[in-house]
Amino acid sequence: MAKENVKVILWGFGAMGSGMAEVLLNKKGVEIVGVCDMHPKKVNKSMYDVLGVERGDRKEVIVSDNVEETIKEGAADIVLIATDSFVKGVFDKAKFCLEKKINVITTAEEMAYPQAQEPELAAKLNEIARENGVTILGTGINPGLIMDLLVVALTGACIDVDHIKAERVNNLSPFGPAVMSEQGVGITEEEFNSRVKDGSLAGHVGFPESVNMISDALGWKLSGEVKQTMEPIVSKVYRKAPYAEVEAGNVAGCKMLGYGYVAGEEKIEMVHPQQVEPQLEGVDTGDYITIKGNPDINMAIKPEIPGGIGTIAMCINMIPQVINATPGLKTMLDLPVPRAIMGDMRDLIED
Amino acid sequence: MAKENVKVILWGFGAMGSGMAEVLLNKKGVEIVGVCDMHPKKVNKSMYDVLGVERGDRKEVIVSDNVEETIKEGAADIVLIATDSFVKGVFDKAKFCLEKKINVITTAEEMAYPQAQEPELAAKLNEIARENGVTILGTGINPGLIMDLLVVALTGACIDVDHIKAERVNNLSPFGPAVMSEQGVGITEEEFNSRVKDGSLAGHVGFPESVNMISDALGWKLSGEVKQTMEPIVSKVYRKAPYAEVEAGNVAGCKMLGYGYVAGEEKIEMVHPQQVEPQLEGVDTGDYITIKGNPDINMAIKPEIPGGIGTIAMCINMIPQVINATPGLKTMLDLPVPRAIMGDMRDLIED
Repeated sequence: MAKENVKVILWGFGAMGSGMAEVLLNKKGVEIVGVCDMHPKKVNKSMYDVLGVERGDRKEVIVSDNVEETIKEGAADIVLIATDSFVKGVFDKAKFCLEKKINVITTAEEMAYPQAQEPELAAKLNEIARENGVTILGTGINPGLIMDLLVVALTGACIDVDHIKAERVNNLSPFGPAVMSEQGVGITEEEFNSRVKDGSLAGHVGFPESVNMISDALGWKLSGEVKQTMEPIVSKVYRKAPYAEVEAGNVAGCKMLGYGYVAGEEKIEMVHPQQVEPQLEGVDTGDYITIKGNPDINMAIKPEIPGGIGTIAMCINMIPQVINATPGLKTMLDLPVPRAIMGDMRDLIED
Repeated sequence: MAKENVKVILWGFGAMGSGMAEVLLNKKGVEIVGVCDMHPKKVNKSMYDVLGVERGDRKEVIVSDNVEETIKEGAADIVLIATDSFVKGVFDKAKFCLEKKINVITTAEEMAYPQAQEPELAAKLNEIARENGVTILGTGINPGLIMDLLVVALTGACIDVDHIKAERVNNLSPFGPAVMSEQGVGITEEEFNSRVKDGSLAGHVGFPESVNMISDALGWKLSGEVKQTMEPIVSKVYRKAPYAEVEAGNVAGCKMLGYGYVAGEEKIEMVHPQQVEPQLEGVDTGDYITIKGNPDINMAIKPEIPGGIGTIAMCINMIPQVINATPGLKTMLDLPVPRAIMGDMRDLIED
């Protein structure tokens, strides 16, 4: 008997959720059986119309703001939640799905390693998932791969590690207005600094998660919290991106630094400047990992792996590993490596 | 109650096996409980004397040529076998250990993906391991990481992959006489070509394994066997390495190329020139992965991750994953990513 398609529900149909839908529609052995979103312009419309894609002979999928109706036990193999950045924000949604005995993958950055900042909520999610015999994973390009899993995998070739530096120099231009606002693109330096002070500038969410993922993987016990700083990238030139305009002298993006210490000594360094149109000031984008140890390892990916498509890919490509996993809260450290799915997704699901 | 140390037996005490011993002696929560080797200069000697290392208050370990006496049920948690390159060569040794209900990691290159060239023996090993409730893995730096697992992991950030090129340009100078001979270092071009013809030149062992690992991971069905070619790297200059001397005009190493095809189209390209003292002709060593897809990914590690220490690290760093795994034959595709072990190995063993 032919195996049934892998059934997916998308919760959140913004840039990430709708991007996942477009990719899933082109994959074999998988189908989208539901979409939940609150946006009044999307609710009660055909998912295909919202995407601007031909439905062909596929079953209709109507975007719904009623999660109770859409996410029911047996309705899907997995829900992809792309609505939040923080564990606190996504917790109730994840719990809801897990209690319906459906696996979950979420883009929420803090969920990539929720034990870092929300150990109690992480323990609860682990318990709920186990009780219901399903699995939950947070992943994405970063956190999820570039500044953590890839670092860890490269240390696999080391007999000793003394210091790790992970640097991601990326271009924010492809992103939408939400990201521009979160990163302070286009505002003045004064406004940037006052928003840093009042905590209203998100910047990159993920350093505590990436640093703890690395240190736990290697068996380093961090002494104290992950230190983070946030600085404005002040542009010398006028820059224009699809969703932002930056006058010379104003802020083109946000440079974040993060540090993890072991016995008071800096062991992990994170460098992550994000800005629009970096090439206008001669900045080469890329992902860099520098391991001091035995052996030293110097890795560069140029240009950087793009964030949006990378996060979409990671979430989709981890579906089989999550469905196949033992029940509970998992992280990228626990599961086999992500891989592009070029064949039939059903072939990757264990009986 | 404190957990017991992880107990390791080394089978094969050449460059790899003795290198693993030196590293293990510096790790916490793990101990070497036996060493098997046939070499008359090592047999019946203290492992510590062979290594030239102080025994301190550790238990004595005598190198033995009697595997029946050393590898008994309950004697160890894992045997690291570093004796062979080919599945046929290592099969009986692996079987012996598995039937003693002991887990196995082996450096045998073909064992990194034995289903590629020895599907029947691979199926037998899987069966024997399952029957005995233990796990067997083949790994190393290459095959095992650089030209396969790392490639696969990077495709995790892709929604589509069209072509993969993996290139490893490395320096053979640190290796011993066995490698010099296997790669044809120092011989004439004529001798190289005649040894290619009669099949007595090993070159790099691992392309069919790496190519099949990648194609299976992505769900590409290879059309036909992996194509391989082997060419001499003829030196323009005199080169001298610790275990080889190359006159100008003679062979400094071996360049291997490999190709995997899907529906007749080349999808995977492997480029692996190995030579002594490459810098004498301005060759920069490095590991390079180029993925054409969505997105494109261009990765470089410069210089290359060294082969010897990398293989030693991979075998040791995968010990917890192998002990924790479900029974059977595993590959690097099945297990969580390798990672340097900087803490106590016992903390990584699940109950």
